[in-house]
Amino acid sequence: MQLLEERILRDGRVYPGNVLKVGGFLNHLIDERLLDEIGKEIAARFCEQNVTKIMTIEASGIAIACAAAHYMHAPVLFAKKSKTSNVSSDCFSAQVVSYTHNNTATVIVDKEYLLAGDRVLIVDDFLANGAAVRGLMSLVNQAGATLVGCAIAIEKGFQNGGAELRAEGVRVESLAIVESMTDDTLTLRKQK
Amino acid sequence: MQLLEERILRDGRVYPGNVLKVGGFLNHLIDERLLDEIGKEIAARFCEQNVTKIMTIEASGIAIACAAAHYMHAPVLFAKKSKTSNVSSDCFSAQVVSYTHNNTATVIVDKEYLLAGDRVLIVDDFLANGAAVRGLMSLVNQAGATLVGCAIAIEKGFQNGGAELRAEGVRVESLAIVESMTDDTLTLRKQK
Repeated sequence: MQLLEERILRDGRVYPGNVLKVGGFLNHLIDERLLDEIGKEIAARFCEQNVTKIMTIEASGIAIACAAAHYMHAPVLFAKKSKTSNVSSDCFSAQVVSYTHNNTATVIVDKEYLLAGDRVLIVDDFLANGAAVRGLMSLVNQAGATLVGCAIAIEKGFQNGGAELRAEGVRVESLAIVESMTDDTLTLRKQK
Repeated sequence: MQLLEERILRDGRVYPGNVLKVGGFLNHLIDERLLDEIGKEIAARFCEQNVTKIMTIEASGIAIACAAAHYMHAPVLFAKKSKTSNVSSDCFSAQVVSYTHNNTATVIVDKEYLLAGDRVLIVDDFLANGAAVRGLMSLVNQAGATLVGCAIAIEKGFQNGGAELRAEGVRVESLAIVESMTDDTLTLRKQK
């Protein structure tokens, strides 16, 4: 997606440890026009899949999931990190290891909101090793729902999450793929 | 806002401890049509305020902030809970006590993204005692930005956050106000 790729090249910042900071337009301060275009693009790629739920994990996936929902006319279900008093004990749960935050989170969804008949599109801002997507896929499987695919804003193509998922037959659509990063340079993979 | 009020009365569930569960349409599973109407309504109420940033706290405020942003053509800035390696150390921070989660969180925003010239609209899903709004107001003050007002989906009118803010001259627009809740009943305040 050209608009996102241009923005990453212009405003993305690379930090040690393969951290790509896009907080200026995607996951802290959010450019609402870019967000809208991302939603439109995801909807265009999955419009014929009869998606019934758009799933993500709090927090930074929510904006992108809602932007897609606006154009796909499907509800958003976001998995929550850890249990709160507002969530029923009747939950599906999965463990997600975050390398960025250096911790493991339990993510949950209320069983009432994820059903065997659902056709689920997983959405997230980043795909690196695939831990978050795997956690969401586990929730989808537990519900007996159907996974339609994954829509990712930025894939780190030099980590193996995306390649492994595709090798397993999961449809992964990444709007931008970072081929390589060093402290000075950032190269995007050419996509059709 | 009639659509939201009707939905609360139909699908909201009251739990002991004044917990109103709206996870079926607002803050776990999100009805994208309702969300869109909420965004439209917030935009209509604040359209003449030249809002430059729509601020919220992760996670459940993000969807509503993005829906408003879509119609207000302003970016969303969401305060993050606790520090991650993706956020610069140059942050404004504030403490927020959550009675729902029974903890205190440090919320932060990158100083780069909240500026003295900003006209800020605070958005959140719930207003009860006002702790989250107070935390966001502190961040706005630290930046020297201007607070335009607060747009809340559901205010618990029997708690004092909204009344106190209005008494201080803060413009608080709540799309639905719960007047009282018991285990069996939920009464909404009549609004013009």
